[in-house]
Amino acid sequence: MSNTLYLPELREMLAEQDSEQLREFCTALHPARTAEFMEGLTAEESWAVLQHAEEPSLVEIFSFIEVAKQAEIVESIDREEAGDLIAQLASDDRVDILNSLPPETVSQLLPLLPADERRDILRLQAYPEGTAGAIMTTDFAKISESISVQDALHEIAHQSEELETIYYIYVVDEENHLQGLVSARQLVSSMGKPQTIIRDLMERGLVTVKHDDDQEHVAAEVARFDLLAIPVVDDERHMLGIITHDDVIDVVREEAIADAHRIAGVEPLGDDYLNTALFTLAWKRGFWLTLMFIAALLTALTLNSFHSTIEKVVWLVMFIPLVISSGGNSGNQSATLVITALNSQHLKISDWWAVVRREVAIGLLLGGFLAVIGYALALLVHQDPYDVVVIPLTLILVVISGTLVGAILPLGFARLGLDPALMSNPCVAGIMDILGILIYFTVAIYLLRIPLPSLP
Amino acid sequence: MSNTLYLPELREMLAEQDSEQLREFCTALHPARTAEFMEGLTAEESWAVLQHAEEPSLVEIFSFIEVAKQAEIVESIDREEAGDLIAQLASDDRVDILNSLPPETVSQLLPLLPADERRDILRLQAYPEGTAGAIMTTDFAKISESISVQDALHEIAHQSEELETIYYIYVVDEENHLQGLVSARQLVSSMGKPQTIIRDLMERGLVTVKHDDDQEHVAAEVARFDLLAIPVVDDERHMLGIITHDDVIDVVREEAIADAHRIAGVEPLGDDYLNTALFTLAWKRGFWLTLMFIAALLTALTLNSFHSTIEKVVWLVMFIPLVISSGGNSGNQSATLVITALNSQHLKISDWWAVVRREVAIGLLLGGFLAVIGYALALLVHQDPYDVVVIPLTLILVVISGTLVGAILPLGFARLGLDPALMSNPCVAGIMDILGILIYFTVAIYLLRIPLPSLP
Repeated sequence: MSNTLYLPELREMLAEQDSEQLREFCTALHPARTAEFMEGLTAEESWAVLQHAEEPSLVEIFSFIEVAKQAEIVESIDREEAGDLIAQLASDDRVDILNSLPPETVSQLLPLLPADERRDILRLQAYPEGTAGAIMTTDFAKISESISVQDALHEIAHQSEELETIYYIYVVDEENHLQGLVSARQLVSSMGKPQTIIRDLMERGLVTVKHDDDQEHVAAEVARFDLLAIPVVDDERHMLGIITHDDVIDVVREEAIADAHRIAGVEPLGDDYLNTALFTLAWKRGFWLTLMFIAALLTALTLNSFHSTIEKVVWLVMFIPLVISSGGNSGNQSATLVITALNSQHLKISDWWAVVRREVAIGLLLGGFLAVIGYALALLVHQDPYDVVVIPLTLILVVISGTLVGAILPLGFARLGLDPALMSNPCVAGIMDILGILIYFTVAIYLLRIPLPSLP
Repeated sequence: MSNTLYLPELREMLAEQDSEQLREFCTALHPARTAEFMEGLTAEESWAVLQHAEEPSLVEIFSFIEVAKQAEIVESIDREEAGDLIAQLASDDRVDILNSLPPETVSQLLPLLPADERRDILRLQAYPEGTAGAIMTTDFAKISESISVQDALHEIAHQSEELETIYYIYVVDEENHLQGLVSARQLVSSMGKPQTIIRDLMERGLVTVKHDDDQEHVAAEVARFDLLAIPVVDDERHMLGIITHDDVIDVVREEAIADAHRIAGVEPLGDDYLNTALFTLAWKRGFWLTLMFIAALLTALTLNSFHSTIEKVVWLVMFIPLVISSGGNSGNQSATLVITALNSQHLKISDWWAVVRREVAIGLLLGGFLAVIGYALALLVHQDPYDVVVIPLTLILVVISGTLVGAILPLGFARLGLDPALMSNPCVAGIMDILGILIYFTVAIYLLRIPLPSLP
């Protein structure tokens, strides 16, 4: 979302080289707000504005600009300047920008960075997307377990300028194994006993994640334990980095959107809707749409096998959409409820029997209710009170099948270790279309004593 | 999700009154983990275990227990003890428990609390659910703008035991108007200049929310500005409380689930799936399901108006599910993409024209592709290569209508100030069912030169 409110004023200030007002613009607001107001500017204009920010706030404002625009700015400026800028960014933000730049630019920029920053970038880039390693930052406060509170306070005051958070301070041994944590709060409230050794103050038994853990798992742990940041370790418990609360909020939002997309049968875009290329969008939708279309083709063939029945009892046709949409809709509801409960860890696979009992009960209640309305309407279309019993009976059976199929399929996917959201609503609807037709015509053939269809 | 791994051991320790092991259990783990392992215990057993925790960790473990079980525990114990316990909880947690207790219990407990805690509870309870006021805590660090860094550090060390977070320290004037903020980090790094006055150190121009702001807005602000906590103020900018990052993560997850439920046509449960009473669940689903059923009844009536056409050209019936599901599925995809983009603020209502152009293009691409497959299959069912052109032509028109309807309806709802997620997928599918039938039979009547149906 861009905020174009102050764009004309900003452009005027730039045209008039009004340094004083531009400096005011860069310092008066929260850096995130400043970045927001700059969103309509070109890369060149943005950089010209940022020249009026003082050193730390230049980097702060820059880090709130969208990654795509950040990359544009880096491309548009002098390589030396770009190297300086990148060296000052948080290590996770840095990697995000480099990943959005063309490889030639990256290979020109990397040699301009200090050797240890360069090594850090290459290491972080190696973690696959969606893992803890890919979203962690290596800028965290670290102290040795053997120093005193007083020394720790000085150490932290010294480190604090470069760190993303100093509120959790990680304690390591000589070989960088994570041993514990002291909070800034503990340090401050222990100021009365400055000689206390950190080892005796620190909390042990930390909640940690591994570098290859899924980012969704990371978010769940941070949420469950109300953490400000979670440490990332390797198999030998070497301290690698931390993931901070603000990155966790982004992960939670990203994953929620991805789940919603999967549920609707869209491959998660991984980018803003308007920024996604048209053919990418078509592909991410087309894949699932084609799968569902094939399911619909099977429905057509199923229906075709009842050709002779349809020719004999045309009024049945009118209720085909009613029958299949009732199954699809109740199935969608169940699937979404089960998927969201599984993904938010309010439900376990082992609860399946409780889910089945609930869904059958719900299916009976809802199906029964719809059956009453359906019977009344069916009488309007076809006046035979016996014949139209087909409709309510079918509705009850179809709604129960819908709730059952909708609930069991995501549980089955989860059981197989797959994302339950893959059992998207349109897939449930596709299955329910075919099942609905089969139930409908079976009930009709039986109740109306229609001769069985011969196979085509 | 409950973890029953250690339940037998815990029960054995309780039976044997093994104080040492129980104390170990209460102190060795993160309080959230301890609470997790206790989930299978009864209220009485839980309280018996908690007796072995030391004072601050008893409250910490208790605050990680689910609210429903917390209320059970409070009900099961002596009123005096319960009053003591509640007085020690964070102010937002306290209100959550009291809201889950029967009114008689609450009226017995309130007089047992210190007068200012009681006043605090009554004030917090007055904020409507879903607002900033209802999720804020009144336990925050507050200092006067006129004191020095040194005094501030002492003040905070003194306050810190009772506060949820000391990382942001809010600066107020004599009348409790919010003036600014100093971070614990700033205080620690200013220890070298202990005489600095807070007024000269604090950040001004804070991001704040009003007590009646929607919790979704609060979450968006915290996420945008990467905040640890956001202050809540009234219309005169009096400081009322803060909302911390961990509560924001809960809001983000809660709202994402609520959106997913709305999109699937389920009134958001506001509770775990398995904890929701069966009739509540039936009502929250039945309301929308009935609405969709009425849409489906209209589809049946629409179809019935083509009764004579259907009798003449029975093969058209086979493709009814194909046609309406193609419209519904492509509409669902568009609706979900637009809803998630709007709710995550990646899209504005004013972008509607860009959305329309994209969706028409996508509709043409996807509809064209499905048309080719559809034509091939239609030939299998009905062997006339001219007649079956009805199918691909209908598919292109229906898919374009689907993408357009799916994209425009949520934008329209947002324009009216309503939640776009209310324009749920089943609603889109319901509309597309009717529209699909109309398009299909219009195309068929025109291409196959069938006499127009007489109105029934």
